[in-house]
Amino acid sequence: MSDGGAAAYTLGLDYGTGSVRAVVVDCSDGRIVGTHVSDYPSGHHGVVTDPRDPHLARQSPADYLEGLRVATLGALAAAASTDGFTGERVIGIGVDTTGSTPIPVDGRARPLALDPAWAGNPAALAWLWKDHTAAREAAAITAVAAEHAPEYLSPIGGTYSSEWFWSKVWRCLKVAPDVFDAAASWVELADWVPAVLSGIEAPRDIRRCVCAAGHKAMYSRAWGGLPSRAFLARLDPKLAELRDRLYEEAYAPDRPAGTLSAEWAGALGLTEGIPVAMGGFDAHYGAVGAGVTPGTLVKIIGTSTCDIAVAPADQPMEAVPGICGIVDGSVMDSFYGIEAGQSAVGDLLHWWVDVVCEGDAATHARLSDEASRLRPGESGLLALDWNNGNRTVLVDPRLTGLIVGQTLHSTRAEIYRALIEATAFGARAIVERMAEHGIPIERVVCCGGIAAKNDLFMQVYADVLGRPMLIAGSDQAPALGAAISAAVAAGAEAGGYRTFTEAQARMTSLRDERFEPRDEAHAVYDELYGMYRELHDSFGGVATDRAALGTLMKRLLDLRDRVTEA
Amino acid sequence: MSDGGAAAYTLGLDYGTGSVRAVVVDCSDGRIVGTHVSDYPSGHHGVVTDPRDPHLARQSPADYLEGLRVATLGALAAAASTDGFTGERVIGIGVDTTGSTPIPVDGRARPLALDPAWAGNPAALAWLWKDHTAAREAAAITAVAAEHAPEYLSPIGGTYSSEWFWSKVWRCLKVAPDVFDAAASWVELADWVPAVLSGIEAPRDIRRCVCAAGHKAMYSRAWGGLPSRAFLARLDPKLAELRDRLYEEAYAPDRPAGTLSAEWAGALGLTEGIPVAMGGFDAHYGAVGAGVTPGTLVKIIGTSTCDIAVAPADQPMEAVPGICGIVDGSVMDSFYGIEAGQSAVGDLLHWWVDVVCEGDAATHARLSDEASRLRPGESGLLALDWNNGNRTVLVDPRLTGLIVGQTLHSTRAEIYRALIEATAFGARAIVERMAEHGIPIERVVCCGGIAAKNDLFMQVYADVLGRPMLIAGSDQAPALGAAISAAVAAGAEAGGYRTFTEAQARMTSLRDERFEPRDEAHAVYDELYGMYRELHDSFGGVATDRAALGTLMKRLLDLRDRVTEA
Repeated sequence: MSDGGAAAYTLGLDYGTGSVRAVVVDCSDGRIVGTHVSDYPSGHHGVVTDPRDPHLARQSPADYLEGLRVATLGALAAAASTDGFTGERVIGIGVDTTGSTPIPVDGRARPLALDPAWAGNPAALAWLWKDHTAAREAAAITAVAAEHAPEYLSPIGGTYSSEWFWSKVWRCLKVAPDVFDAAASWVELADWVPAVLSGIEAPRDIRRCVCAAGHKAMYSRAWGGLPSRAFLARLDPKLAELRDRLYEEAYAPDRPAGTLSAEWAGALGLTEGIPVAMGGFDAHYGAVGAGVTPGTLVKIIGTSTCDIAVAPADQPMEAVPGICGIVDGSVMDSFYGIEAGQSAVGDLLHWWVDVVCEGDAATHARLSDEASRLRPGESGLLALDWNNGNRTVLVDPRLTGLIVGQTLHSTRAEIYRALIEATAFGARAIVERMAEHGIPIERVVCCGGIAAKNDLFMQVYADVLGRPMLIAGSDQAPALGAAISAAVAAGAEAGGYRTFTEAQARMTSLRDERFEPRDEAHAVYDELYGMYRELHDSFGGVATDRAALGTLMKRLLDLRDRVTEA
Repeated sequence: MSDGGAAAYTLGLDYGTGSVRAVVVDCSDGRIVGTHVSDYPSGHHGVVTDPRDPHLARQSPADYLEGLRVATLGALAAAASTDGFTGERVIGIGVDTTGSTPIPVDGRARPLALDPAWAGNPAALAWLWKDHTAAREAAAITAVAAEHAPEYLSPIGGTYSSEWFWSKVWRCLKVAPDVFDAAASWVELADWVPAVLSGIEAPRDIRRCVCAAGHKAMYSRAWGGLPSRAFLARLDPKLAELRDRLYEEAYAPDRPAGTLSAEWAGALGLTEGIPVAMGGFDAHYGAVGAGVTPGTLVKIIGTSTCDIAVAPADQPMEAVPGICGIVDGSVMDSFYGIEAGQSAVGDLLHWWVDVVCEGDAATHARLSDEASRLRPGESGLLALDWNNGNRTVLVDPRLTGLIVGQTLHSTRAEIYRALIEATAFGARAIVERMAEHGIPIERVVCCGGIAAKNDLFMQVYADVLGRPMLIAGSDQAPALGAAISAAVAAGAEAGGYRTFTEAQARMTSLRDERFEPRDEAHAVYDELYGMYRELHDSFGGVATDRAALGTLMKRLLDLRDRVTEA
């Protein structure tokens, strides 16, 4: 930031699953001076569902627009009490969103869902990240790529997901060909919001972020951008045609997506022409806001986790088996962005406490308290953390949970602790896989409520990982990261920064609280982790000499599906 | 029974873990005309424990004597309201007890514990069946027998248990040598009670039942009775010396243990000289009372189960690996008695509902109701029933529970059902093992509260086993079986019967209620049972190609023990 200038602020917009949050951030120190959250009014907590299909999860683009207005005005109003703050002091806007959340748009880049002609058609809505209707398409894409273009699978860990761009678009083509045909293009929510703010009115003019393109749409400069027409034609000729209506190039977040339009400047009380930064996924900008650097893994811990690391882009980077994505510039320019994740963390504890124990917040607290008095290994229990499948490193949604070691005295608190430990072992499998492939992890910085609230959780992770566990200074790391991207897009002259690294140094922080590994506990967990790996490799299908057990979970699911359909 | 004679009755005494029950039974139809239960006053619900050693479980012989008097007088008083009943109509007494429950006695066959000199010494008490202090001794006996006398292990399934006679006696020698030295002999509770009633005052005069001797003390006529002096001397020379103070021969229940002494006849208001039948274990006489015959497996279902079958003794019988005991005459004369068991059945459901779910009787009912609405295979869950180890067919107490297939939606009712199914799969493993070795099982007759109260449980078993599940007509099968033994001991002339088979035909019954296997459910359970066997053989150490998983449960227990002791 330019010394001696008037205080500069940026606006960060964080599009979550149920709401959008706006923050106004002081560029000098990253302090949030105003914040406001606007819940999406549609569906169930903002998610449009289908009682006949539990895999369907969509959102209304109208909610995104209304939320943008309400959240921003609310945050600016809240910031107004800060001495000297006015909307004119806002030097840029940054956006992070869920993803892959692709939206079918018309020729003017308007979502089809905003056109009354498509009202009530769920295929015309935004296909929310957690929509899992495209499982078959994902499997087919993986199979075709494995045969014809294995290079496409390398940077995404070897398996294409039902949550990702091409699976969803192809699914739409199959189940709602009229919507597919009507779509001039498809735009990720992370690219669409900055385009809206910039007043861009043609899909081809929308700058696409490499974050979404590289992690979710098999984009890479190594093969000239998106997957080839020939490859897409193997899936469906119409997908090959769609390729021409998408984009040639995707961008790292070191340049603006556009500048604020007069219309939105007027509506929000901001300055026309300030830069709108490239959008990015919440986890990626969350990592920025948490201070990600080489050697630091940022874990965004919620119902599931997203794990983000970076590595200098000036060094060669090999593919890492089972790591969902390694994309140059996806988190920050000049770095590889490396993404991994665990399918159930908060959800696993929620399942145990709320679903099985039928407890409430007090039960969570009680179990955490009781479990924290247990020593590692004392319960004799060991669990796999696969109740929602395994995202990294097995990349297999058709895996399930397992608990072993129960006696007639095993308590709910012991099982609660075993489940926390299971997620920590899952985290260790990720960290070790990264380390084996030249991405050393020296410390872990966590974001999310569990990290801040559950000391047991943090200490178990420190002891299991053998690495210090830290907590991001901001509770709103994704929104802060978006605000940082705006400060970089605005540049030092305007009161922002030249690089992400410089901006992070000033605008991010850590809590004083930290959790260090304890030698004795770490030694016990080394043994337990060895046993976890035996179960992991046996039931995860890694150990081919135990091939039968490696399919057992799938056979149980197949049987379930058969008797349920019968 | 002699036609036209006055009604004849027998007294059955059933020594349970917490109380003794007396029943007065009409020999013509097995009807119980009077019953009374007397709780043991000592310890915790009759069990003397040691807060420093959770494996210790002892009982006071004084409780047995007082219970004998109170329960019998109470039952006779209750029977008095039956038309024409008087104590003179009681033609014999039968006794069943827990076991192996050996008691150290002095030269007059008096328990040492009744001598004030030994008051407060737990080693002088009765060593209750569930005392597990002798785990090391049991392992050493198994090891020595495997090397030097493998024939001893054949009829007991290959592994000597810590619950059994020699383990306990040896343990006493180690931890309380003064008690061991003071004991003129050791007598099973099942032998001691009939001896008391018969006024026998020398240990050598006590008739020992082959039930306890053959199943628990490695007695067999094949090698001349008890284990050889040479074998016992390998354990400890003092055990070899003890052998001479025990017994040369053990008896099937077709002859009396003695006749009622004047003293006890006076105390109880019964006729001096009526026969006192050979005692037997509760499960064995329970099977008699439930109508066990070749082809019928009797399952006595409580916290654990005891499974009893019989096979004609005039045919050769091979050893059956993993079946705890095959003893000629142990249930009824002229039949092999075959004993198996599951370590946790009621206890497993109790653990889930009461310990983990922190529920009560209403919770049991609700979960049973919800679980009964699920179809086989629908939950995708599969469990092993080993929370308390595996008695049959693996004979391994150091195994633990396992549940696999959990999602984030798995409910407590689904897990409750999976645990019931796990015990049913365990039951099927026993039935199949018997069938493979020439002991076909065509139907199962159950005793115990679960059988009578839990329709879901019975239907799951029918569907898993592919065999009809029936329920014994009497709620007090062990006491009824003891009363039947008395009717056989009294003989037809006195108003009883010539043989057990004749007595069972008249004195036992089945409930009208029966549970038949359903084809569709059985087919699904065939698949699930196949997967159960995969887990069973992997984690039970049967599949040597999966040797690592076969020791995983033990390694978890070892780790638990180490960190707990540290």
